[in-house]
Amino acid sequence: MSKILVFGHQNPDTDAIGAAISFAYLQKELGKDTEAVALGTPSEETQYALDYFHVEAPRVVESAAAETNQVMLVDHNEFQQSISDIADMTILAVVDHHRIANFETADPLYYRAEPVGCTSTIVLKLFKENNVVIPKQIAGMMVSAIISDTLLFKSPTCTQDDIDAAHELAEIAEINLEEYGLDMLKAGTNLSNKAAEVLLDLDAKSFPMGAKNVRIAQVNTVDLEEVLSRQDELETAMKNENASNGYDLFVLIITDILNSDSELIVIGDSLDKVESAFNVKLTNNRAFLNGVVSRKKQIVPQLTEVFG
Amino acid sequence: MSKILVFGHQNPDTDAIGAAISFAYLQKELGKDTEAVALGTPSEETQYALDYFHVEAPRVVESAAAETNQVMLVDHNEFQQSISDIADMTILAVVDHHRIANFETADPLYYRAEPVGCTSTIVLKLFKENNVVIPKQIAGMMVSAIISDTLLFKSPTCTQDDIDAAHELAEIAEINLEEYGLDMLKAGTNLSNKAAEVLLDLDAKSFPMGAKNVRIAQVNTVDLEEVLSRQDELETAMKNENASNGYDLFVLIITDILNSDSELIVIGDSLDKVESAFNVKLTNNRAFLNGVVSRKKQIVPQLTEVFG
Repeated sequence: MSKILVFGHQNPDTDAIGAAISFAYLQKELGKDTEAVALGTPSEETQYALDYFHVEAPRVVESAAAETNQVMLVDHNEFQQSISDIADMTILAVVDHHRIANFETADPLYYRAEPVGCTSTIVLKLFKENNVVIPKQIAGMMVSAIISDTLLFKSPTCTQDDIDAAHELAEIAEINLEEYGLDMLKAGTNLSNKAAEVLLDLDAKSFPMGAKNVRIAQVNTVDLEEVLSRQDELETAMKNENASNGYDLFVLIITDILNSDSELIVIGDSLDKVESAFNVKLTNNRAFLNGVVSRKKQIVPQLTEVFG
Repeated sequence: MSKILVFGHQNPDTDAIGAAISFAYLQKELGKDTEAVALGTPSEETQYALDYFHVEAPRVVESAAAETNQVMLVDHNEFQQSISDIADMTILAVVDHHRIANFETADPLYYRAEPVGCTSTIVLKLFKENNVVIPKQIAGMMVSAIISDTLLFKSPTCTQDDIDAAHELAEIAEINLEEYGLDMLKAGTNLSNKAAEVLLDLDAKSFPMGAKNVRIAQVNTVDLEEVLSRQDELETAMKNENASNGYDLFVLIITDILNSDSELIVIGDSLDKVESAFNVKLTNNRAFLNGVVSRKKQIVPQLTEVFG
């Protein structure tokens, strides 16, 4: 049996990297020849966690066929968010917490999805079900993923399972959840030194919605005004992205992690549909989304419905 | 929250019914308002199990919208094998052991698939993970499902998990596995009194393969010659099915449960592809498939590949 590559989605966030590292470790303990890789370099937030726990960043790959035909996916399933040659791979396993779409296999597989806030919460259950001990640095990456995905439990995607898992892992990782968590989240909000194109690509995913191709990027900040002061530059970059990648609509969500709200900037087709999805009026391509912090729960389903 | 309907695939086999009954019971114990229903009447094999364990056959439904918008699927995921209005339903959970295809949701969900021989083997794990006690009659339906799907452990789809689960459930159900198992399987092989149309519909599923719509029916027998003596009548019925349902290809697998082999009869397009899929030469639309008993593992992937 050839090597098995384990990876999260493109533009990896802390869960995509943390769940890949921890699930690959678990599978290796269970006798599989796995390697955690990533479909992009870690964000500053993720790098903060990797440095803190002395974990090496996974090797970045763009395709798999040159080295294997077997993969395991974490934190995603939609093919357009996955490795470029995913359609040629045998997918042995998926561990995820997203909707299922644009995904199919020729053979039965292991698929474990739960509607929880973070993939790493599910990975913790798998460690327990298989009676595998979690080393400190693996627990550290897993708790970092939960903090990231739930914005320290403030996201509406956060469940009691996530909170329980984070506390259990924090103990193994020997961290103070609040203190470490805020430091890690803040490490990811350093946007001022980034070109607009880079900022738009930090945490962006594409979604086919009806006949439309929708790109949804999200950035976290502790200073909304600082990001909004760059609106012109961001809009130009969004227009360029739409033109060069065939996106019909580009949605940028700028999330205030201290107040748990977001500003929305949209460029492209069907702006009226965006207004009806969120029940807001766009002014200057912008709207304030009160209490919205979760792309998965508060953005994607609403847009999917209006474009359905 | 409205009622949740729990069901297996169309043309239900013993696992589709047994897993629906057992998973609905488990979810009810966990506080959900579930009802096991079925997308067709039980086969004679399934009815044997229901009678033996004094379990009422689930109510047969064709659509769900009149009574609920929430469903849980067992033993299938492909929409064309599901309830007629599946696309309008919120799918809360799936427990399955098949490939994933033609399946998508707008929201995150609970999805549990494992590459084991039977859905009920996975349902047993869920009972244990949730510390719910399994009543005798529920265990009886679950072990019947495992016997059925694995042909008493002879199918190549059968895993050690299935064997272990069956022994554990047989103890709760107070049966002798071999004795009860063979009696139950034989109860499903009474084909001589069935019209060809009925026989073709006992355990049939549709699969989109490339641009083709392929229908694959399977029947179990202890007397291959008896079924093959009706080849003309069966072929006429297969042609009619193709014409009236738009199938490009109808594949009938007649499985000898005592010797663990099958005869294949095919009607429709692309017979050369069928020959290459199974590395056989068709004579009079027929071929012997040595050691083939599993549609899921020995038929569907091979056909999917040649039509891919």
